[in-house]
Amino acid sequence: MSKEKSGYAIGKQSIEMKEPVYIRESASVVGTKEGQGPLAELFDMIGQDDMFGCASWEEAESSLQKDAVYLALGKAGMKKEEIRYIFAGDLLGQSIASSFGLASYEMPLIGMYGACSTCGLTLSMGAITVAGGFAEHVVCVTSSHFASAEKEFRFPLGYGNQRPLSASWTVTGSGAFVLSGDKGAKSRAAITGITTGKIMDYGLKDSMNMGACMAPSACDTIYQNLMDFNRRPSDYDKIITGDLGTVGQHALIDLLNKKGIDISGQHMDCGIEIYDAKEQDTHAGGSGCGCSAVTLSAYILKKLEEGVWKRVLFVPTGALLSKTSFNEGQTVPGIAHGVVLETITG
Amino acid sequence: MSKEKSGYAIGKQSIEMKEPVYIRESASVVGTKEGQGPLAELFDMIGQDDMFGCASWEEAESSLQKDAVYLALGKAGMKKEEIRYIFAGDLLGQSIASSFGLASYEMPLIGMYGACSTCGLTLSMGAITVAGGFAEHVVCVTSSHFASAEKEFRFPLGYGNQRPLSASWTVTGSGAFVLSGDKGAKSRAAITGITTGKIMDYGLKDSMNMGACMAPSACDTIYQNLMDFNRRPSDYDKIITGDLGTVGQHALIDLLNKKGIDISGQHMDCGIEIYDAKEQDTHAGGSGCGCSAVTLSAYILKKLEEGVWKRVLFVPTGALLSKTSFNEGQTVPGIAHGVVLETITG
Repeated sequence: MSKEKSGYAIGKQSIEMKEPVYIRESASVVGTKEGQGPLAELFDMIGQDDMFGCASWEEAESSLQKDAVYLALGKAGMKKEEIRYIFAGDLLGQSIASSFGLASYEMPLIGMYGACSTCGLTLSMGAITVAGGFAEHVVCVTSSHFASAEKEFRFPLGYGNQRPLSASWTVTGSGAFVLSGDKGAKSRAAITGITTGKIMDYGLKDSMNMGACMAPSACDTIYQNLMDFNRRPSDYDKIITGDLGTVGQHALIDLLNKKGIDISGQHMDCGIEIYDAKEQDTHAGGSGCGCSAVTLSAYILKKLEEGVWKRVLFVPTGALLSKTSFNEGQTVPGIAHGVVLETITG
Repeated sequence: MSKEKSGYAIGKQSIEMKEPVYIRESASVVGTKEGQGPLAELFDMIGQDDMFGCASWEEAESSLQKDAVYLALGKAGMKKEEIRYIFAGDLLGQSIASSFGLASYEMPLIGMYGACSTCGLTLSMGAITVAGGFAEHVVCVTSSHFASAEKEFRFPLGYGNQRPLSASWTVTGSGAFVLSGDKGAKSRAAITGITTGKIMDYGLKDSMNMGACMAPSACDTIYQNLMDFNRRPSDYDKIITGDLGTVGQHALIDLLNKKGIDISGQHMDCGIEIYDAKEQDTHAGGSGCGCSAVTLSAYILKKLEEGVWKRVLFVPTGALLSKTSFNEGQTVPGIAHGVVLETITG
């Protein structure tokens, strides 16, 4: 490995892209509740009901991924044959939403799992693959579905169990992104760096308060990003977590304050933005692999495209639990993967 | 992206490493049944019982990963701080074996899912990351555990359900690999290419015959590898699938024969090698994320190291089902990820 090449890696756990990787196009597909929320007008497609014409919640989630990829490719004017790899993941056991949603595309598949942080993980590895010259174009896609996630992690919806105010509401949605190294083509924004997260476990065990469980990982990744890139919070127009919600946001700001860093002026959370919590009874906010993905596609990239924001740190957060680990009394560790996004200046 | 760089990608779905990525060291940890099989003497560690001192099967699987990484780092004479990323995965829902097994290493974690093909996937993405200059050293680790897998995919062991002869036996084991771009250091073998698989679905639905479900994906990846690299089967000393077992092996050889390719002289399957099927009553053979990983570490890399084999195509195979998808009547699609391994000639 030449020294020139190894220069990609900076600091303890970040990578600086020498040549930016472009998000050429993207698409978002959401369910009914998201379609009644504050970002409704920005989504590419809103389902008429949350079954999306399918026979099960899992199939419905698969169709979300299929549609999101279809729309993103269409907007980019690209054929599936031009895509070298698809990086994909979801929250379901054995990632079945991705497997059954993407089979028909016949693209080489890189399956990834980082719970609700998976959107950041797929963008990170997709960007590495393009920046390293291993592919010209790749697609990154993630999804979640309220009903399939409740069944997977908590209780069947039919039980009608009560939810504490600290609980989040899993977003029904999928976001797909076409990444490309091609400077010439029109793009929405550029990925200029990544900070890959470590597992952080503060010993919390409440799957109905995942914001608190994930806040330490968001804190660690944001802190490490600032150290590795030698930046201050104000070097970002926004620092955007995936799905901490209102409880996790407080914890994150407090944890970073203890390290002498104040992000209260820059912080935004996709889970807080996607619903009107009071009107929509979503408690702490939205969550899930789809939450950060659709908010990135519909809202964050729009702001970057318009030049309202020039540089943001996008940090999807994930809670690494399963029904089995929860029932066996394990903790709920978190992980967060950071992606630096910048406006493209011609 | 410069032309020089994009030259990594060859053919339809392969990558040729311009500078090889070295498997500097590796380690294998297995359970009691594997410790009574034909490869017993080659494993680094054999458990005294399959609980490995833990309170649950899932925790036991986590401890397998932890131990495999510990041993691999020790053999390489490296500290955890020298590892830039850990690429990890397992078969359990939400990959909890990896999450709880690897947290204490505090390494940036890239979670991956490709069912039993995950070993190939982690080696592929680990190799890309090193070859592209994004990391000097990475670790790749995967695991499976017979008891946690039966519970996850089929029935609790206590039910004592019968197994047809086409069923495979999930390997209790974990294999860890330290990848490095450093030419100077001693290494076991080199990764010189990869072929990333697509999802292949022939409509089979029998989770007790996963060999047949996965054979089409193995066929596709092997065929594509030979096309992309312009090689014949005899250009490899061995073409080694992960866990097709005896039923899947027949299907694979037949499927490739129909394409005019005969690999009967080169084919080997980790699932067939790891047990003495008659003596150990393992039916079609071993399977699981751990099967290909421990066989690679203990047996395949040894043969390469000794120069008995000069070049092999290693193709872990995965069945993309979950208990939910199976119970909902879905098919069992397959995926296979190929890695070209070569003897290092100084």
